Amino acid sequence: MSDRITVALDTMGGDTGPDVVLPAALKALNKCERLHVILVGQEEVLAATLKKYSVELNDRMTMYPANEIVTMDESPVLALRKKKDSSMRVSVNLVDEGIADACVSAGNTGALMAISRFVLKMLPGIDRPAIISRLPSASGHTYMLDLGANVDSSAEHLRGFAIMGSELACAVENIKAPSVALLNIGEEDIKGNEQVREAARLLTETDLNYAGFAEGDDIFLGDFDVIVCDGFVGNIALKSSEGVAKLVTTTLKEAFEQSIFTRTAALLALPVLKSFKKAFDPGRYNGASLLGLRGIVIKSHGSADAPAFANAIDIAVREVEKQVPQAVSSKLEKVLSKDR
Amino acid sequence: MSDRITVALDTMGGDTGPDVVLPAALKALNKCERLHVILVGQEEVLAATLKKYSVELNDRMTMYPANEIVTMDESPVLALRKKKDSSMRVSVNLVDEGIADACVSAGNTGALMAISRFVLKMLPGIDRPAIISRLPSASGHTYMLDLGANVDSSAEHLRGFAIMGSELACAVENIKAPSVALLNIGEEDIKGNEQVREAARLLTETDLNYAGFAEGDDIFLGDFDVIVCDGFVGNIALKSSEGVAKLVTTTLKEAFEQSIFTRTAALLALPVLKSFKKAFDPGRYNGASLLGLRGIVIKSHGSADAPAFANAIDIAVREVEKQVPQAVSSKLEKVLSKDR
Repeated sequence: MSDRITVALDTMGGDTGPDVVLPAALKALNKCERLHVILVGQEEVLAATLKKYSVELNDRMTMYPANEIVTMDESPVLALRKKKDSSMRVSVNLVDEGIADACVSAGNTGALMAISRFVLKMLPGIDRPAIISRLPSASGHTYMLDLGANVDSSAEHLRGFAIMGSELACAVENIKAPSVALLNIGEEDIKGNEQVREAARLLTETDLNYAGFAEGDDIFLGDFDVIVCDGFVGNIALKSSEGVAKLVTTTLKEAFEQSIFTRTAALLALPVLKSFKKAFDPGRYNGASLLGLRGIVIKSHGSADAPAFANAIDIAVREVEKQVPQAVSSKLEKVLSKDR
Repeated sequence: MSDRITVALDTMGGDTGPDVVLPAALKALNKCERLHVILVGQEEVLAATLKKYSVELNDRMTMYPANEIVTMDESPVLALRKKKDSSMRVSVNLVDEGIADACVSAGNTGALMAISRFVLKMLPGIDRPAIISRLPSASGHTYMLDLGANVDSSAEHLRGFAIMGSELACAVENIKAPSVALLNIGEEDIKGNEQVREAARLLTETDLNYAGFAEGDDIFLGDFDVIVCDGFVGNIALKSSEGVAKLVTTTLKEAFEQSIFTRTAALLALPVLKSFKKAFDPGRYNGASLLGLRGIVIKSHGSADAPAFANAIDIAVREVEKQVPQAVSSKLEKVLSKDR
């Protein structure tokens, strides 16, 4: 691999398509000199978008044709079987063929998982990709997985997530021994379910920096580097948090809009409200990694804007630089060899 | 039952004990003329607290001695077996004996559940109490259960929660046919777990107003009256939401404290910030019901202040007025008789 980092961009995925992906690509190219992007999608649509933004292809930004589009509500199975020339499939193919080092898509999550798993294959010991993302926290941020790819996870699955999450945080954040916690409940006598208790036992047998149980509020207020949970639980924790954050900010906005007096106060408080808004800008945290694959696949939010999509590209670049799949693979091999 | 509503108050539970419970009782007595409270706890401690607040016992506020205290970190099994004269146990006993119509405790949740279940017994078809609470939402509020009492809930358990939650919302909120949703994930191809899918099938066979699946953000942004989930999932959704709400408000506060300029802006924005804070005051939502018991038991938050504890007493009063256990019992009987 040369010094160049090549990232394939599915330009047709998400709610907005190339109108977000092209400006995001320009932003990312500007930030990282080593980056080369491949715009994957329908040639005429891309040509029109390039024209609209008065941009021309060059040796750092090339195009790769793909004629089909996976829609947001399409069945993952059908997307996998029937749409072999979709921008999503072709982007993943480019990673498999070694033409790209990573790919980024804002398309249908289920389809992206199914296609990535089929094309790139899983690392030994991993059944399905796990979705990991960085979330804001009082102490900086926390990586959390799985965010919805795996339901009914066994203790062994949770251990797999812990290994992968730890390696990702280690590589991308340069933390030597990231602290890893298991998400659990502590309210009552049962103290969690069987899988979590067994996973805790398994984790104490690894050389991970296992830090015990985390409760729900620790995601945002604790100082764990990685928090591990089943995908059903993780998805609901993430979405309910997004919901409450939205409710809080909307209520604040409405409170400031009530009267001329409060609108004046809002005007004076504008710099504060702006910095507050920036701190919680979901775009800063956009870009979830599909871990456990033999290649790098980043999922951008379907409604991400250009700066947010650029952030997802940036995550892809960092994972290429740190060779995350190789790091995860060698760590998995080490732990699983002890099981045998 | 006379017009009088008698509520036993565990004065020794929670982080603060009678210093919160007594002022809360006075506040609640002031609000509801029919209310009579029984202060349950150590006589000398209660006498000292009454003296401190210059309050005397009267025919609406009596005392009932209980010499032991269940601590916040005590094993529920030990609390049940060994502390038969605890303020928590005696409070629940008073409900069982018909001396009180309901009880409120801010003590150890696990112990309160174990004691309530042992003393009051469960309604037919229910194994364990479910914890339900009202949460703020964009459209007003939503009842959510189970919040941590039951892990690994089966489809039949989830149906039981749906019946109980629907009856509570119906009785306390005067909603004729509360809309009931099942908490699920929609991100990917699996679309939830087996139990939730089977529960959805069971719910379509009842005469509940079953409204389909809710995702995590619908708790705070949707307009369902009741959202049903497993206790592990519910507890984590609740706590992670509390965490993010706290993070958001702390960040806002810090932003306003940055400089003289922002502090001046904060001063001007004070009325707005106050109304904002009030809207998210956890005290307004304090008081979770333990549903499925043959009596009314309300759990107040361990760190609740007096207005928040008064809110929990208020919930007890409303449940007595509406005879919630009887309403739940007859609804359960109706649905379960079809199973046979």
